[in-house]
Amino acid sequence: MTETTLRRSGGRAARLSARASVAEPAMRPIRPGLRGGQYRPLSDADVQRIHEAALRALFEIGLADAPESGIAAMTAAGAILGTDRRLRFPPAMVEDALARTRRDLVLFGRSPENDLDLSGTRVHFGTAGAAVHMVDVETDRYRESTVADLHDAARIADVLDNIHFVQRPMVCRDIPDNLEMDLNTIYACCTGTLKHVGTSFTDPDFVDDALELLHMIAGSEAAWRDRPFVSNSNCFVVPPMKFATESCKVMEACIRGGMPVLLLSAGQAGATAPVTIAGAIVQAVAECLAGLCYVDALAPGHPVIFGTWPFVSDLRTGAMSGGSGEQALLTAGCAQMHAFYGLPGGAAAGIADSKRPDMQAGWEQMCSNVMAGLAGLNMVYEAAGMHASLLGFCHESLILGDDLIGQALRCVRGIEVDDDTLALDAIRDACIGGVGHYLGSSQTLARMQRDYVYPALGDRSSPKEWEERGKPDLLAQTTARKMAILATTPRARLDPATDKAIRARFRIHLPA
Amino acid sequence: MTETTLRRSGGRAARLSARASVAEPAMRPIRPGLRGGQYRPLSDADVQRIHEAALRALFEIGLADAPESGIAAMTAAGAILGTDRRLRFPPAMVEDALARTRRDLVLFGRSPENDLDLSGTRVHFGTAGAAVHMVDVETDRYRESTVADLHDAARIADVLDNIHFVQRPMVCRDIPDNLEMDLNTIYACCTGTLKHVGTSFTDPDFVDDALELLHMIAGSEAAWRDRPFVSNSNCFVVPPMKFATESCKVMEACIRGGMPVLLLSAGQAGATAPVTIAGAIVQAVAECLAGLCYVDALAPGHPVIFGTWPFVSDLRTGAMSGGSGEQALLTAGCAQMHAFYGLPGGAAAGIADSKRPDMQAGWEQMCSNVMAGLAGLNMVYEAAGMHASLLGFCHESLILGDDLIGQALRCVRGIEVDDDTLALDAIRDACIGGVGHYLGSSQTLARMQRDYVYPALGDRSSPKEWEERGKPDLLAQTTARKMAILATTPRARLDPATDKAIRARFRIHLPA
Repeated sequence: MTETTLRRSGGRAARLSARASVAEPAMRPIRPGLRGGQYRPLSDADVQRIHEAALRALFEIGLADAPESGIAAMTAAGAILGTDRRLRFPPAMVEDALARTRRDLVLFGRSPENDLDLSGTRVHFGTAGAAVHMVDVETDRYRESTVADLHDAARIADVLDNIHFVQRPMVCRDIPDNLEMDLNTIYACCTGTLKHVGTSFTDPDFVDDALELLHMIAGSEAAWRDRPFVSNSNCFVVPPMKFATESCKVMEACIRGGMPVLLLSAGQAGATAPVTIAGAIVQAVAECLAGLCYVDALAPGHPVIFGTWPFVSDLRTGAMSGGSGEQALLTAGCAQMHAFYGLPGGAAAGIADSKRPDMQAGWEQMCSNVMAGLAGLNMVYEAAGMHASLLGFCHESLILGDDLIGQALRCVRGIEVDDDTLALDAIRDACIGGVGHYLGSSQTLARMQRDYVYPALGDRSSPKEWEERGKPDLLAQTTARKMAILATTPRARLDPATDKAIRARFRIHLPA
Repeated sequence: MTETTLRRSGGRAARLSARASVAEPAMRPIRPGLRGGQYRPLSDADVQRIHEAALRALFEIGLADAPESGIAAMTAAGAILGTDRRLRFPPAMVEDALARTRRDLVLFGRSPENDLDLSGTRVHFGTAGAAVHMVDVETDRYRESTVADLHDAARIADVLDNIHFVQRPMVCRDIPDNLEMDLNTIYACCTGTLKHVGTSFTDPDFVDDALELLHMIAGSEAAWRDRPFVSNSNCFVVPPMKFATESCKVMEACIRGGMPVLLLSAGQAGATAPVTIAGAIVQAVAECLAGLCYVDALAPGHPVIFGTWPFVSDLRTGAMSGGSGEQALLTAGCAQMHAFYGLPGGAAAGIADSKRPDMQAGWEQMCSNVMAGLAGLNMVYEAAGMHASLLGFCHESLILGDDLIGQALRCVRGIEVDDDTLALDAIRDACIGGVGHYLGSSQTLARMQRDYVYPALGDRSSPKEWEERGKPDLLAQTTARKMAILATTPRARLDPATDKAIRARFRIHLPA
């Protein structure tokens, strides 16, 4: 999935490209699934208190608005329906559901090299969201996002090593019919990339058609059920502490269809969740535990991602601020709760509040991404391309996100300490009778490709070299790379016969 | 030190400014000296192994090139001079020096509210470096840095809440005489800010004149010695494992003059330090421990900052890459070693390789700054304004660094967990018989100013509002803020009589 052929030709670029392309996959300094957890924003006692508060919230407050099917399943499993129509969950029921939830989950790609192992504190980064705007860097404007934009995003993400999955980041605003929109979203993502895809459904009735489409892409229902490569991003709650009735029905349909479910609780601290970071985590954990009980009551062991996605409000305006330090803390704290439960977990990071891919966007995206990674978050959603607090998606930013996340992944990999890395012999050799430096030493040469990450677009030239090269502009370089990627990658990762059959069965908006 | 009066006037800005100015200093969500340490890149066993490897390096390899005065002092204290002229340090000598080194160090500002408490894992951010270029955002070019640029940088840093100290970030290239340059560097920094200042000296013979200048600024030698507000950034080693003979003599002179010393070991992994992150830390720790033995042999308890500043090479070119993930790891690992020794420590973070304050600069500066803070680094040097891997300094970037570091500090502050923050009552109130949300609740209003950080220049507006405001450009806004700061802050933080006396005694290049 490296694509050295897409780089600019020419002396320096070719030289760098040649060197960068040396590393075999196993030798690469970074890869999906590196283990985080070195950063622990919560003490063990804090984690325990949050867990206990969530259990109390579930037993004492409970959740309203479950659909009848959910009430039936959950009360049969031990939940208590109050006269106030709220479902309350005894702690023992929650602990039982936790015990039965699948732990060593693999999220499948369409191709096996894109499979994601969500065990332990393994970290993966990818896109997600429901942006309604494309951020057009060349014209410096926000416009409505289209299915073609989504397809391009998937094609771009497919070639970026550090984007590990493609949950739909934006809404196809050019498709007014909701069923067509949901189906074309799947088509656009799955024809753009062989990586794992995430999506959502507007209506429970749309799931059957979507499954039919997925069976066709997979080759058969059995092939789909063997390796489901699309998960359902499911907002099953309306915080605070209410089930989202229609989304719950979507979830039930996805479970029947063998689709992994991201149980997504997206409260907003200070608006739909408590203003305190700890409180927003408590509520998100409680809501996701309720979701876990729900799934467990229907289909124990069904693949589920624990999606505590609390967001932050800018309390001056009530608007979201995904780029804030408070957001980074919320997400990192949630990652630690996932590790406590030993569950596959996901949350949001990498969001910029900035409208453009500028310096603000850079610091915002790095802050939460690197903290999420260091905290060991299994699935870092919304990690690249997101601007204006999730309202805008930007292709250039997605591409730059590959560099940014590569750097974050290098930090997640961390510091190896062993006899070789402690380097006492290397220090002795350099100092005593040696050349007095480490340049070109065997250890330096051996480590150069295995330990060091080199950005594709990030510029490390000296001011002199930079001037000689005409002061290259980061965004202009990135737009050029975008054009090169889109010009050289397949338009549809489907065999023509399948594509034809799909187009005969469904109204596909992307041109054949 | 807030300066709400400098903000743009007008409806929204005034409204935000009014709200932002509510918080009293004690109520502010962030402040200097927040405690880090939640991020631990090294296990306890790793830390122990690095310590033991450093002790072995000191005993088995030792350091060359100590000046005669240093050899005399250190051999008297137990060091062994080999026939190869390398000084070797028995482990017991190192442990004794460690035991005698001052721990609860306060670095003084010229005004007490700027004092920095370096105990424990308290975190402070500031400038540092020796850039030779100014990055001129308005003309998009690199030009030689001047004493006026340095003075402006100090004046800007003085009003930025999250820049806690001002170590000289750039060289006065317009002052060819080295003595005049060193003295004017002190004058430019100390007339620009009342925060703690750091500087270096080209020649040991210059220290006496500098001390005379500092006595004049302080009012007397006794006043200076009571609260020394300038520290000596001292590159006492030439890595690998050689004393820098002249810098050591500077250090001796500074110790005699009562000036705190930053023992700065600035190896470059893969060039002048081992290529591995662990090995570069081992060498830096060994070198700084040698410096500690040196200071302890001369003046036990003299204020010292343990300055393990290993840098990273881009091994394709051998050039520095201060913006890399490897750099962030090196610095965070060093912070953990400082905490292990319980010593006041400093290292470099916040460096951008990018030539401009663009998206790359944003992610580079945040990555190492937030990781340094979370690792509990006492003094985060070079934290703002630094571009082109330390070759260029940028005023706009310094100002944006205040927002960036404010966000990092919010992350350092972390997640408070107690009965109030767990918010079970707030959740109950919102869900059962309540309004169903948290907007405007008493907890939300109370926490709004105390828990949440609002950027001064970072833009959180919606795309609609952003368009209505004419799509404000981050750098143009920042340049306007720079102009406003420079127009409204004092040119010289000195009483006129002292200034006159200084100008009569020394050749001051800045106009009176």
